[in-house]
Amino acid sequence: MDRAGADGRDGSGIGVVEPRTLTLALPPEGLALQRGGRLPRVEVAYETYGRLSAEKDNTVYICHALTGDAHVAGRHAPDDEKPGWWDEMVGPGKGIDTDYYHVVCANILGGCGGTTGPSSIHPATGRPYGSAFPPVTVTDMVRVQKLFLEQLGIARLAAVIGGSLGGMQVLEWSLRYPDCVDRCICIASGASLSPQALAFDLVARDAIMSDPGWAGGDYYGRDRRPDWGLAHARQIGHITYLSPEMMQRKFGRRKETPETGDGPAPHRFEIERYLRYQGRKLVERFDANAYLAITDAMDRYDLEEEFGTLEAAFASVRARFLVVALSSDWLFPPGQSMALAEGLLRAGKRVSCCRLQAPYGHDAFLLDVEHLSDAIRAFLPWVGRRGGGQPPAASERTAFERIAAMVPRGGRVVDLGCGNGDLLALLAERRGATGVGVDIDLDNVIAVLDRGHDALQGDIDEGLAWLPDGAYDCAVLSETLPVVRRPDAVLREMLRIAREGVVSFVDFGAWSYRVSIGLLGRIPREGQETAFPFTRADFTDLCRREGIRVLDMVRAAGGGSRRRGAERLIARIARGRDFRGNDASPRRSRRAPRAP
Amino acid sequence: MDRAGADGRDGSGIGVVEPRTLTLALPPEGLALQRGGRLPRVEVAYETYGRLSAEKDNTVYICHALTGDAHVAGRHAPDDEKPGWWDEMVGPGKGIDTDYYHVVCANILGGCGGTTGPSSIHPATGRPYGSAFPPVTVTDMVRVQKLFLEQLGIARLAAVIGGSLGGMQVLEWSLRYPDCVDRCICIASGASLSPQALAFDLVARDAIMSDPGWAGGDYYGRDRRPDWGLAHARQIGHITYLSPEMMQRKFGRRKETPETGDGPAPHRFEIERYLRYQGRKLVERFDANAYLAITDAMDRYDLEEEFGTLEAAFASVRARFLVVALSSDWLFPPGQSMALAEGLLRAGKRVSCCRLQAPYGHDAFLLDVEHLSDAIRAFLPWVGRRGGGQPPAASERTAFERIAAMVPRGGRVVDLGCGNGDLLALLAERRGATGVGVDIDLDNVIAVLDRGHDALQGDIDEGLAWLPDGAYDCAVLSETLPVVRRPDAVLREMLRIAREGVVSFVDFGAWSYRVSIGLLGRIPREGQETAFPFTRADFTDLCRREGIRVLDMVRAAGGGSRRRGAERLIARIARGRDFRGNDASPRRSRRAPRAP
Repeated sequence: MDRAGADGRDGSGIGVVEPRTLTLALPPEGLALQRGGRLPRVEVAYETYGRLSAEKDNTVYICHALTGDAHVAGRHAPDDEKPGWWDEMVGPGKGIDTDYYHVVCANILGGCGGTTGPSSIHPATGRPYGSAFPPVTVTDMVRVQKLFLEQLGIARLAAVIGGSLGGMQVLEWSLRYPDCVDRCICIASGASLSPQALAFDLVARDAIMSDPGWAGGDYYGRDRRPDWGLAHARQIGHITYLSPEMMQRKFGRRKETPETGDGPAPHRFEIERYLRYQGRKLVERFDANAYLAITDAMDRYDLEEEFGTLEAAFASVRARFLVVALSSDWLFPPGQSMALAEGLLRAGKRVSCCRLQAPYGHDAFLLDVEHLSDAIRAFLPWVGRRGGGQPPAASERTAFERIAAMVPRGGRVVDLGCGNGDLLALLAERRGATGVGVDIDLDNVIAVLDRGHDALQGDIDEGLAWLPDGAYDCAVLSETLPVVRRPDAVLREMLRIAREGVVSFVDFGAWSYRVSIGLLGRIPREGQETAFPFTRADFTDLCRREGIRVLDMVRAAGGGSRRRGAERLIARIARGRDFRGNDASPRRSRRAPRAP
Repeated sequence: MDRAGADGRDGSGIGVVEPRTLTLALPPEGLALQRGGRLPRVEVAYETYGRLSAEKDNTVYICHALTGDAHVAGRHAPDDEKPGWWDEMVGPGKGIDTDYYHVVCANILGGCGGTTGPSSIHPATGRPYGSAFPPVTVTDMVRVQKLFLEQLGIARLAAVIGGSLGGMQVLEWSLRYPDCVDRCICIASGASLSPQALAFDLVARDAIMSDPGWAGGDYYGRDRRPDWGLAHARQIGHITYLSPEMMQRKFGRRKETPETGDGPAPHRFEIERYLRYQGRKLVERFDANAYLAITDAMDRYDLEEEFGTLEAAFASVRARFLVVALSSDWLFPPGQSMALAEGLLRAGKRVSCCRLQAPYGHDAFLLDVEHLSDAIRAFLPWVGRRGGGQPPAASERTAFERIAAMVPRGGRVVDLGCGNGDLLALLAERRGATGVGVDIDLDNVIAVLDRGHDALQGDIDEGLAWLPDGAYDCAVLSETLPVVRRPDAVLREMLRIAREGVVSFVDFGAWSYRVSIGLLGRIPREGQETAFPFTRADFTDLCRREGIRVLDMVRAAGGGSRRRGAERLIARIARGRDFRGNDASPRRSRRAPRAP
């Protein structure tokens, strides 16, 4: 396929697209819904971008969020003011590259963007469903997507991707149709709404249903509509989509008009005008009953309620997962994405995760796609990140070879502080090990994804509690011991999650260092101001205290030229009889401000 | 005064109290309001607890929050189900100890708890004000409090205290009546609502004003009232008062009734019932116009808008301040309390601050008073914390004496990592220094408050940016250097905030340590697993790199028996010609996961 010369970053990559509609071929009794209702006829509005390969194996399905629709990218007419809602992500050379992938998005069931929903005509009455529209679930939405794709002749998806409610649909795809999805990307989502998000949703929905214009849901064709209620619900929702920092930066407490001195006037603050504008804009393009139907589905979505645990929910999953958390998202806080990753790990699935530093809050997946598109591009199978990774420095290979020699053949390995994945690549090459890397740095995580390995973005100092007991054959900690906050806790955690550990560190007991402190009175820091040096004796002392056996320890001349003479020790460790386990979490300890 | 035998912890300390009302003696033209309105008559509903001293110098005035009232403690009748809203805080032996203090609280202007507000009778019409009630400000509220207290014969307050909107009133007291307040305690508040809090408030107020029952504010005596709007506003507000963790713990996603399968039904989730209950409860006891009047005052309150900066706002303050932040408060996030403390510090005022670990969110100042009452009790002048502090260990005094000798006489000193204040006490005693301590631990902060010094609860590793440039003559860092994350940044910060610094640390270059590493190959840790040891040479190297002059360095035999032979170095430092300043913030650096 041709890259068409341009990289599409000018936003004109997709060009004009045609919205389409398909009527699902249903049995005579129609579509039976999860909560007992039935729909005699289901239409699906959709768009596609890029070309379906002859093998029909390059489709990326996009699941849209609450008030989204099928118009993801491009324009419906050349003079359209705005392109589709994720135009920055989808197109030639973009995160989801239409030079390689066939991209499909359909409006969700219960919506008002062309797919059957409460404002659609009820075939039996010839009038809009209104209050007669049966309740739908996220499972129903995804079932309709599956039937629709089958009708297009697409049996398998290269990937399914979505944020927020779209992420819940991604979860459903992975659970209900495990054989039809290769990769899943779940962004800023969760296995259910948090109680706080649920509370806002319930209060917002009450505003629609308390609006006299709602008329029990049968307002179509009447003079009054629940416009106030819908706008109000949107305003509450919109606050939850933005981070407090972003609100401060974008609006602060700026006022629109000078004070007049009389009572509370509307539009006093810019934030007020903005929210009213958002409310009005939604009323122009959205249906209140659709808002109720979809938020109701979202409120009820709860994998833990249905399956008991997330581990059980994900038991049948076969897809590789990329879970993306957004740092400033408080509607779906990063912890909910981490819980998804943890559930998948406990279920023994392949999962990667990123925690994007995204100041815009929940809406960052729509507004702030720069790093997100790099991560998605690296995770998708057919085309790598732009630029590509660096080859491993030759100087590092010596130490890595020693580590590799200690890693069990064909084992499952976790590399704590994995950098750009050089060691994981070597372990795969030399020992046939399947590996996952843990690293604090997003660039490193993207580099590891790009090389086809799994990577979990995380801070070792914040603990490894989300990695399950005994999930790995071997945990590697290369060069990272002196810079963690609680070396004792990290070693304990390594041996909780893995049968064995391999630890490499610069030996500060080597003779050159002994001279440094013994004669010169200087403790060698090697440029790491805050690192705590370890000697062979320190390490064995620490292991003894923790009930850890040192199975093997070898010495290796170090690599980097900046570390003249730095010798590394590489130790293989396992739980001893007196292994202390990990009662204390490896979270950052409260610093004792004064020594006794 | 008698402690009455009991400590009042059974909640029965105050007993039956009598609500009272006072009519302000106003000039014939009535009370002129800040935004131009005028009230011909102002009644003030209030309660008092404890006895006013003969010197009239023991009054603690409590400012209540949005929907609070004057009924702080005790019961109006012996069989009242519930006591006043802060009964746990106020009473014999409690945080605000009525054995020592005379406690007063009045309902705020614009409220509906007995003080003049929108539901009061307009003297000119004989009917409730309704839409004719003039807009009031927080400044007006406090002005009424001042006039009211004058009429009670109380010219000076030992302290004024309040949380949330009550905290804004405390700020007003400190600015507008600087000569009338000795101490100010401002809890979970800020100099203005954040844009996010403002946004929720604006949306909630819109619900009241859009309720057909509101009738432009003139609903008194009519059939319909804006009950739905008020309840709805309260529900939005109530979500913002609770932390997400607390909502999860208290309600989770539990459902009340089994699913019935038909559409969105009310009361599906426990959280929904709870919020509806909170809405209903407020409607029973509160007036919608009062809610609008008070939230409008809160929305508009903005010290930075009025004065330009907080430093300028606090220029006239004479009271000592205690600012209390609640960790899980997201309506008034801890950063807003820190900004108040910073503004007071920049204005050169005496300020202490605590950051309470309070899981309940904003409402923690009402619900979770245990630590809060200890801090308040320690800060108030007349009676100390229960138990009292320990006398300084004799063994520590040697090192402290050496430090004291390096601190300028009569200087302003900040002790970073101040512990329980022993060193501050010694510096005051030996050198006449006025000191403020910084410590991460609340108990230490309370101990320092209890000894009459100022204390700022904070983590040195998170930076000292809130301490102003050159605010101190001397910054002391005793025993803390090896446990900070970025020693270089901390030293730079010390010399940004102070003219000179004094640093004491265990000398790991002492011969006993040289033997430890030189012969035994062990780096001595002294029980601090994560501490980075410094030698004399390390320290002087570091200072040279940072452009810091070492003016003086002395050796002192250490104290504690656990540190056999541990010798301390005590260095006096100042900015050198090449002082690097503090471009890099001392925040925790991103750990490089792999050495080069």
